[in-house]
Amino acid sequence: MKAYRNMNKEELLALREQLSAAYEDVKGKGLKLDMSRGKPGFSQLDLSLPMLDVINSSSDMRTVLGNDTRNYGDLDGIGECRRLLADMMSVKKDNVVVCGNSSLNIMYDTVSRSMTKGVNGSTPWAQLDKVKFLCPVPGYDRHFKITEYFGIEMINIPLLDDGPDMDLVEQYVNNDAAVKGIWCVPMYANPTGISYSDEVVRRFANLRPAAEDFRIYWDHAYCLHHLYEDQQDEILDILTECEKAGNPNMVYIFASTSKVTFPGSGVSAIASSQENIEFIESQMTVQTIGHDKINQLRHSRYFKDINGMKEHMKKHAEIMRGKFEAVLEVLDKELEGLEIGTWTRPHGGYFISFDAMEGCAKAIVAKCKEAGVVLTGAGATFPYGKDPKDSNIRIAPSFPTPEEMAQATDLFVLCVKLVSVEKLLEAMN
Amino acid sequence: MKAYRNMNKEELLALREQLSAAYEDVKGKGLKLDMSRGKPGFSQLDLSLPMLDVINSSSDMRTVLGNDTRNYGDLDGIGECRRLLADMMSVKKDNVVVCGNSSLNIMYDTVSRSMTKGVNGSTPWAQLDKVKFLCPVPGYDRHFKITEYFGIEMINIPLLDDGPDMDLVEQYVNNDAAVKGIWCVPMYANPTGISYSDEVVRRFANLRPAAEDFRIYWDHAYCLHHLYEDQQDEILDILTECEKAGNPNMVYIFASTSKVTFPGSGVSAIASSQENIEFIESQMTVQTIGHDKINQLRHSRYFKDINGMKEHMKKHAEIMRGKFEAVLEVLDKELEGLEIGTWTRPHGGYFISFDAMEGCAKAIVAKCKEAGVVLTGAGATFPYGKDPKDSNIRIAPSFPTPEEMAQATDLFVLCVKLVSVEKLLEAMN
Repeated sequence: MKAYRNMNKEELLALREQLSAAYEDVKGKGLKLDMSRGKPGFSQLDLSLPMLDVINSSSDMRTVLGNDTRNYGDLDGIGECRRLLADMMSVKKDNVVVCGNSSLNIMYDTVSRSMTKGVNGSTPWAQLDKVKFLCPVPGYDRHFKITEYFGIEMINIPLLDDGPDMDLVEQYVNNDAAVKGIWCVPMYANPTGISYSDEVVRRFANLRPAAEDFRIYWDHAYCLHHLYEDQQDEILDILTECEKAGNPNMVYIFASTSKVTFPGSGVSAIASSQENIEFIESQMTVQTIGHDKINQLRHSRYFKDINGMKEHMKKHAEIMRGKFEAVLEVLDKELEGLEIGTWTRPHGGYFISFDAMEGCAKAIVAKCKEAGVVLTGAGATFPYGKDPKDSNIRIAPSFPTPEEMAQATDLFVLCVKLVSVEKLLEAMN
Repeated sequence: MKAYRNMNKEELLALREQLSAAYEDVKGKGLKLDMSRGKPGFSQLDLSLPMLDVINSSSDMRTVLGNDTRNYGDLDGIGECRRLLADMMSVKKDNVVVCGNSSLNIMYDTVSRSMTKGVNGSTPWAQLDKVKFLCPVPGYDRHFKITEYFGIEMINIPLLDDGPDMDLVEQYVNNDAAVKGIWCVPMYANPTGISYSDEVVRRFANLRPAAEDFRIYWDHAYCLHHLYEDQQDEILDILTECEKAGNPNMVYIFASTSKVTFPGSGVSAIASSQENIEFIESQMTVQTIGHDKINQLRHSRYFKDINGMKEHMKKHAEIMRGKFEAVLEVLDKELEGLEIGTWTRPHGGYFISFDAMEGCAKAIVAKCKEAGVVLTGAGATFPYGKDPKDSNIRIAPSFPTPEEMAQATDLFVLCVKLVSVEKLLEAMN
């Protein structure tokens, strides 16, 4: 294949004509596909249906310790569910509080609490002139929305192949006391799919923050979400590393079963040091009498233990693999060598990250939409929705079927080509 | 019966001896009963078990509108559940957002949001020198904990037989711009069991707050929690009254099924004006992708409609009635005419409120505890846990069986007598 940038004007004009015709053809097909969010597909949702039979009117509703899950109590979650989510996050049970259905909600509450009450007794952020968060980019739009909502200044940190640019992270965190946090998706990052190397995790644990209330917001959303049995990323346990480095309170870990059982009807958890957990619980006890313990029991009984959950995740992997591969096959076949885009080949998670030529992402997303395929909005993977290069596009292959994914990707590559050609032609004028 | 205060010292001394001996006897029995919280009893929890069979692996998981409850979506709750909770709160469906398992959590979030983001665009409370809430007393300790947690100054307002002292409420709300809210339990109030009269509701609706961000926090926790079929309190719909009075945005209504189905595994909701709901949702959309819709579906399918829920509540009433009556019987029999305490006779709700002689509540609760019966801590029904008269005690009859309740109340009246005698003797010295 000839790289587009090596084509002359005539070649590009001919190509544009050909691509435009093809695009009009596809538009005529009336596609209607949604690749915008990391929504599990129907076949994935079906996987967890048997969990709904685990608890019924004749079930013993008591926990292992004998507590009645139907009544008030167990603010920090029932023991067996704390154990399950602790094993999921590779931490100790005592470091875990199981909450409601949404880990995003725990993250929101964590930032919100810091605004009004500070962190373990520090000055409430609402009383500070400036609070900053580091945001590895591209990243998860809903993280950025939380910090934006609270008026926290966000600073882009390039996400490299083995994690955030740690030179930059260290420079900010160790010198600027206004930097209070960093958003991380350490495994199968949203959207690039990379996992943090041991060195990166250790450098995180060994930060020497200028701010006592600096915390790492470690969103372990995809900790069990491998695509392949023989290529599984592994990351170091950040909590242990932080302890070793004399920073036991520096990290909050978040996880949920939203993409294990049911989005919206899963259980979520936060893991942290004893001191952090105590501070969190001093707020939680004001906020609620307790979370849904019947659903916690449902999860614990269904999976029995972490091995049950891991087996379950293999079924998700089988489904997801086909969708990822459908996308990658089209990208490889159609774009390889054209030098108009690069894309990631994750071993897990929910997304493929695509980098178009500078200044093309918005136009590509718009063109796809015009022909019936909705992608995540260009820019969404950056704070304030602003991708400085207008280059990154998040592809979410989970919801459509593999056939629909292939169809949608066909359209996607066509739009990438067309927009790139137009960009190159524009540059010639 | 002779009123204690008409007894002379000798009579009191003889009485004290007799009561002390009886008390030591009871202590020997090793009672272990908990009347501290409004926890439903086992037989009440059993009532809702069939709900757990409504959703299973072969259920159609789609809402009436066809949305898959297993997946992300429906931030404001599924339509049928919004309808159900709207009918529960006697408001329109469009005014309702269904949330997670805890209405307390919605109240907390509402105050928390006001701290950081203000109310519909007003100055965030965290930036104000002083924020005050009116607290009808005696009231619900968990309301007071929320406002205390956020450093909001709480002002006691006497709760009369038909609602809060509205002269005082009007005086504060209409003149002091620092007054931003009032906690209300308008039906079967916690703990006195009274319901607000139409006049009180109308006076609420016709407030002319000095603060634009003043809101009424209307905790409709016991809106369906009647004890008797032939004596049901009814209250006016505050939302409609506020509209009529030109104050459409002045009230937030909260409710949940925690004491209808399962504490912890129910569904909760907030009802308010469109403008308020829009502001709330602008925050909710940052906080979560959505609440547990499968549980919403479970509730909707189980009850079918509000009539199903009302039928269900009759079964609760049957159980609760026996417990209330067991307490009242002992109180009437043992304390009538002694002039050492007064108590309420609610037509619904979860509590009986007892007012001992001034300065006796703490000692009574301590004495009960010493003999194995745990009551709600004295003072808990007042802001900061400080009952200025040390007089009010909340009795929560729901958790023990009627027999246990009678036993516990026997001890309670004994302690009331003993402490009262000691108080009177003390006054003579």
